[in-house]
Amino acid sequence: MNGHLAIVGLGPGDVAMLTPHAQVVLAAASDLVGYGPYLDRVPPNPAQQRHPSDNRAEIARAQLALALAAEGRRVAVVSGGDPGAFGMASAVFEAIERGPAAWRALEIEVIPGISAMFAVAARLGAPLGHDFCAISLSDNLKPWPVVQRRLLAAAEAGFVIALYNPASRARSWQLGEAFAMLRTILPPETPVVFARAVSRPDERVEMVRLDTAGAGRADMRTLVLIGSAAMRRIERPDGAPWLYAPRSVAAPT
Amino acid sequence: MNGHLAIVGLGPGDVAMLTPHAQVVLAAASDLVGYGPYLDRVPPNPAQQRHPSDNRAEIARAQLALALAAEGRRVAVVSGGDPGAFGMASAVFEAIERGPAAWRALEIEVIPGISAMFAVAARLGAPLGHDFCAISLSDNLKPWPVVQRRLLAAAEAGFVIALYNPASRARSWQLGEAFAMLRTILPPETPVVFARAVSRPDERVEMVRLDTAGAGRADMRTLVLIGSAAMRRIERPDGAPWLYAPRSVAAPT
Repeated sequence: MNGHLAIVGLGPGDVAMLTPHAQVVLAAASDLVGYGPYLDRVPPNPAQQRHPSDNRAEIARAQLALALAAEGRRVAVVSGGDPGAFGMASAVFEAIERGPAAWRALEIEVIPGISAMFAVAARLGAPLGHDFCAISLSDNLKPWPVVQRRLLAAAEAGFVIALYNPASRARSWQLGEAFAMLRTILPPETPVVFARAVSRPDERVEMVRLDTAGAGRADMRTLVLIGSAAMRRIERPDGAPWLYAPRSVAAPT
Repeated sequence: MNGHLAIVGLGPGDVAMLTPHAQVVLAAASDLVGYGPYLDRVPPNPAQQRHPSDNRAEIARAQLALALAAEGRRVAVVSGGDPGAFGMASAVFEAIERGPAAWRALEIEVIPGISAMFAVAARLGAPLGHDFCAISLSDNLKPWPVVQRRLLAAAEAGFVIALYNPASRARSWQLGEAFAMLRTILPPETPVVFARAVSRPDERVEMVRLDTAGAGRADMRTLVLIGSAAMRRIERPDGAPWLYAPRSVAAPT
């Protein structure tokens, strides 16, 4: 069995942020597997077979990719951003752990990509300049109290928080509840950023304060960044202010 | 004033992980500013001026870059990994905030790169597949109790932890103390990964258990990854086991 499976990070969308490594692996694949809109980002190649699937079908998609690789195909599973951060990599390894023993002998390669939080941070200044965390706000796969506990722990300890999957058509109340909870801990002026489709033609980045942050600004293509109390804002004569998290934390006086 | 300053993420080291965007910006610069070994990664160009500096001189380096840009030069400040994650971006904005007002009119661009934690995660499987955080273990810029508090909060809440700056010649005891503290919270078999120079020719990745993790394995080129209790290990007939963080958290029974 000489099958090969690569889980490839496409980055945030702009092809200028797709690594040469990812480009080479995508071009060499016999089969491309992934969520339809992500597959559409890969240049057409009539020698390749494409297997588009629906957004929510991660495990089925991983199993299809593994089965193709086990047949000796050279498979690339595409994933937005970085495949290891709330992308397809974890689903593939979960499918391997539950699947036939032969899958453990496959050659598997994970190709990193630029994760959304770094693309968003780059637009704003340096808001991830001190300790930070990434939390998926979805309660499809974990109980909501676990999400709540992680949000509280992160905000209390002073992490900047990047929220992935803040909302979807089926999940509308979670982000509002998260903001309400964070208002009990963080100052009202804490910056909250809604960044949608960063680096894509329809990019939109809005900065508000925590006390006025409304959950309606987010959808499934949005990343929400929540500052720490240490976050600094630099006003500019032209253009939006820069936001940065200082590297230093002062000693208590 | 038409000066331009780009803060460019070089990724973990392998040029195949340097984005096309970063390559274009580096090639177009009149001046390259950065830590010497990072500058050495950029292909020579006799038309460019290079300004290498020492590892610890971030603010002075940022000020030099800003002063050059204010003279109308096209400056690229290089940073390992992603410039926004414990890289040069925060230092540049700190220098701007404290510096002359004219610096706020400069055109500043942050170019994302592949951060070390994603390059390391890709080697292992998908250890960042659920909520995770990144903490700089250095107490040069923040008091040690702040570091301790963040480590405890993250471990208690179930985050996977990526430790940047785990040790240096001048900081030898912090990592051992961090492990000791985490042993009071996390199971003894929690995986701990020491990943040094990932994607470079001298790459070395070691996986141990928390109960036997020794701080001596880390230096300033090492990233340390500490699993959560949920982390899964997949044994393989050939090669090192895969490590992944499941996307799901079971509801309490």
